Amino acid sequence: MDFSLKQIAELLQNSSTIIITAHVHPDGDCLGSMLALNEYLTSRGKSVKMVLDDEVPALYNFLPGYEAIGKPTTKIISSDLLVVLDASDIERIGKVKEHVNAPILNIDHHISNTKFADYWYINSQSAATGEIILELLRLLNAKMTPTIATCLYTAIATDCGFFRYANTSVQTMRYAADLMEYGANPNSISEYMETKPLESILTLAKVLETLELHHHGKIATITVSPDTLESLDSTEGFINYPRIIEGVEIAIMFKIMNEGTIRISFRSKTVDVSRLAFSFGGGGHIRAAGCAIIGKIEEVKKRVLDSAIKQLAETLL
Amino acid sequence: MDFSLKQIAELLQNSSTIIITAHVHPDGDCLGSMLALNEYLTSRGKSVKMVLDDEVPALYNFLPGYEAIGKPTTKIISSDLLVVLDASDIERIGKVKEHVNAPILNIDHHISNTKFADYWYINSQSAATGEIILELLRLLNAKMTPTIATCLYTAIATDCGFFRYANTSVQTMRYAADLMEYGANPNSISEYMETKPLESILTLAKVLETLELHHHGKIATITVSPDTLESLDSTEGFINYPRIIEGVEIAIMFKIMNEGTIRISFRSKTVDVSRLAFSFGGGGHIRAAGCAIIGKIEEVKKRVLDSAIKQLAETLL
Repeated sequence: MDFSLKQIAELLQNSSTIIITAHVHPDGDCLGSMLALNEYLTSRGKSVKMVLDDEVPALYNFLPGYEAIGKPTTKIISSDLLVVLDASDIERIGKVKEHVNAPILNIDHHISNTKFADYWYINSQSAATGEIILELLRLLNAKMTPTIATCLYTAIATDCGFFRYANTSVQTMRYAADLMEYGANPNSISEYMETKPLESILTLAKVLETLELHHHGKIATITVSPDTLESLDSTEGFINYPRIIEGVEIAIMFKIMNEGTIRISFRSKTVDVSRLAFSFGGGGHIRAAGCAIIGKIEEVKKRVLDSAIKQLAETLL
Repeated sequence: MDFSLKQIAELLQNSSTIIITAHVHPDGDCLGSMLALNEYLTSRGKSVKMVLDDEVPALYNFLPGYEAIGKPTTKIISSDLLVVLDASDIERIGKVKEHVNAPILNIDHHISNTKFADYWYINSQSAATGEIILELLRLLNAKMTPTIATCLYTAIATDCGFFRYANTSVQTMRYAADLMEYGANPNSISEYMETKPLESILTLAKVLETLELHHHGKIATITVSPDTLESLDSTEGFINYPRIIEGVEIAIMFKIMNEGTIRISFRSKTVDVSRLAFSFGGGGHIRAAGCAIIGKIEEVKKRVLDSAIKQLAETLL
């Protein structure tokens, strides 16, 4: 049987020593949720520790309190509760799994959640785990500080693409409004999150030069070379450029990895690209999916384009 | 004396033939506001005409009813009321000024509004004219249709940069939530608005190659050549790329026009660039300003960079 938010609130109230963690490759939702929950629990006199098996991306260094997030060690520590945020699966917390000996509470919004924990609260209707944390803090009558507001606003804005993705609900907008009243500043949060290293802009220019249209402009591809990848942390956002071109139905990014693998990302407007990715051993969602294929770029590209054209024809039938 | 929103509502109720117009170089706010007001007034049995002295950008062809927007002719037409939306100054409506013979009602949110009309409602606290139209329609007990919701959501989202600019208020978020309840779909609106012609993405790649950093990475410039401009409607958004680079305080775009003029746009994080623009005969806001200088690009660039460095030094003192 699932747990209610009230039961989760009581569980937190009854725990004295609490460790909070979240998924590796952390994003604004898991970091913001972690920091907001930490701020509240600490204010209630709990002994709280934040542990994450990854670096906090520099992008999120504006979040108040991020410096207190530690890394797991080989030493095993015990506590009353390990809170796992925004992770649908125990593997997603990396080495924290072995590092902490405690009953696990999982709070998450992923529909794919495996209910791996001892206690859980999963709401896939929420655009972000941050929305659930806001509801939880309200149930606990928490004082909504500007720190909590900034963290939760960042959490929510990250996961709904600043209120542009399909998961943006009326509730998402109302929660964001409430968080602004508690002290979140959308303009400075978006300024921080938009900031990019020079290298990323220079790389974008290079990658855009590889832009190709196929199949009467319905498919657009970009290709990222191994030397480009070396100079860059992340290619996030690059696939948006082919995606937003007028008339494009499927956008594809080919990343040529050094070891001979081609990593492929798909985005679409109408076509189910998860089927496309699945046919190459990958997976994902209807409009965003990915896979990896071993082979030479020309040959891999041809195979993928052929399949994409076939998928497109079937969809438009 | 200023007019109240109630007086404006009564004025509309008491008018039978109404012409609605907005500013040239139309954006989502003036178009969305125009179409929403037209939809309501038409439903009340008024004889309504929309006239605009410009083309509707293809980008906004998803707005329901845009095909009904006509152009002014040399013939003079009369009506009970000419509603001028989102224009701070009579010159902004172009030839509609000579085309229509009617008392003028101006609804606007620009702080620079000149109160040129016979009746006016100006609220510079509103992030968009669309927010005022929503308030007006509520006062009139209008039935909020999905058409009205889509138009007003687009109006508001345009002017607050999809809830990221500093003018985004708690009210802005709450109005957006309400409009979603009335039928606006943020995801499809943002998808439509993000769509770009292929040429725009290709040009972006070319323009990014001109990126230069100056003064220890605190100033970033891009330069747009005349042949680039020929193939493109708009350079909107290009200046964001130098602006978001880590460490950049002032972003500058130089547009080399064919006739020997250099058009310059400034963006900043901290520095007051309106002073910079003003010193070259231009103007604008603290963080976004512009000017035009006649001269050769190398020489103009040097003058502008020298001034920018000086301004930067004064700000950081």
